[in-house]
Amino acid sequence: MRDVNGRGLDRVVVVLVRARNPNNIGAVARAMYDFGFRHLRVVNEYVMPFESARSAVDALEVLANAVAFGSVADAVADCTLVVGTTAVGERALQHPLRLLTEAAAVIHNELAEEGGRVALLFGSEKTGLSNEELSHCHWLLTIPMEQHEEVRHPSMNLGQAVAVCLYELVRAAGEPAVRLSRGNAAAATAGEVERLRALLTEVLKETGYTKRHPANCDEEQIRRLVVRMGIAGNDVPVWMGILRQVLWRVGGGGEG
Amino acid sequence: MRDVNGRGLDRVVVVLVRARNPNNIGAVARAMYDFGFRHLRVVNEYVMPFESARSAVDALEVLANAVAFGSVADAVADCTLVVGTTAVGERALQHPLRLLTEAAAVIHNELAEEGGRVALLFGSEKTGLSNEELSHCHWLLTIPMEQHEEVRHPSMNLGQAVAVCLYELVRAAGEPAVRLSRGNAAAATAGEVERLRALLTEVLKETGYTKRHPANCDEEQIRRLVVRMGIAGNDVPVWMGILRQVLWRVGGGGEG
Repeated sequence: MRDVNGRGLDRVVVVLVRARNPNNIGAVARAMYDFGFRHLRVVNEYVMPFESARSAVDALEVLANAVAFGSVADAVADCTLVVGTTAVGERALQHPLRLLTEAAAVIHNELAEEGGRVALLFGSEKTGLSNEELSHCHWLLTIPMEQHEEVRHPSMNLGQAVAVCLYELVRAAGEPAVRLSRGNAAAATAGEVERLRALLTEVLKETGYTKRHPANCDEEQIRRLVVRMGIAGNDVPVWMGILRQVLWRVGGGGEG
Repeated sequence: MRDVNGRGLDRVVVVLVRARNPNNIGAVARAMYDFGFRHLRVVNEYVMPFESARSAVDALEVLANAVAFGSVADAVADCTLVVGTTAVGERALQHPLRLLTEAAAVIHNELAEEGGRVALLFGSEKTGLSNEELSHCHWLLTIPMEQHEEVRHPSMNLGQAVAVCLYELVRAAGEPAVRLSRGNAAAATAGEVERLRALLTEVLKETGYTKRHPANCDEEQIRRLVVRMGIAGNDVPVWMGILRQVLWRVGGGGEG
């Protein structure tokens, strides 16, 4: 067995969000199997497409071991880097965008960190990832495609998009690693970031910021704000402590 | 429009041999469209899958312009480099085998030649390319896949395999060209090679070689022999002249 996992590829998680077509879920599992990836997570309001894909006669082990989650937040909670995939032109992007080749280098850099775990999010076949779903992402990845003048909303077949991304990750694993140092600090997991967001939301509300600047305060905006901090895991308890201190103080603690 | 064709990618032809599933043909056309490739050729004994794919509601221009051929020889006749795709392990290989990354570099080298035209052959979903079909190929390309112990005959979803190959061709087009010189000689087309094979076959028969060494003389073996010559287009008339001369002589010409 070729050791793609020697480069940490076993800590890559593929997350399918609202995939509608069981055949597409099966095709994604097939691409993962072909390239040696094992961790598939599915976020779906309805269990039908997932169950249907799992019960297919030729369903693979990847699919048998896939895990269903109720939300993107839960599906990526243990990941230190969350990467959304998009076909450019779909929407006004509020995230940094990287071409697949560059993205693969950054992902390998994250996997080289102790405990680094990377989620690759793929949206529904029709609509891609919603703004709420994108708000969980550190940045976005796009596969360079031909620009056709007649097409306003380019997109790629889901199974093909996953196959191309995983191929590139395996290919890049064979290249000499370019080490982009982040010092010694491991990144915070998405779960930690989400707890920080919840606490910050409370602070904004309790301090009256939300009332004065309601346009800045919907959940997605606050999440993007916290995700953009690129916070190290070590710093999470520090920030949590600061925010709790603020809450205590504005709640009347220590007065008089 | 991104100019992938500036690197000659418009002279790449995708050839599907005995594809059975109309959905797969459609998926191949989709991948070609996404990456900016236009020339699809289909070799099928039965027209059904092709016609069915063409009549799909979302069929693309690539599919509308696809051309059907009765044989691999006809489908690649105007190509100067014919590359077969294979999942390693399928059979004892009689051809040189290149990993996709290296293959892309050699293909770009061919496209850099004036008049270079490259055929990429994909076999049927179940059986891949037959020995006869492989005998038209200069060499084979394989996508590096994870080796699973429980799998004897690895293969990849057809649409995904095409998508990964075309992605790599586009990606490699963006890299600095490594020029592997072949001097000034343009390669012979597959059609020229095939005419040479036919003439050589006649020579072998007329000279009695076929009778003495029947094991060396089936059509595929002779084709592989001629393909391996890597003959330049300029040399084709020379070789044809030599073989015709032999035929004339063994037929009794110039005797006495």
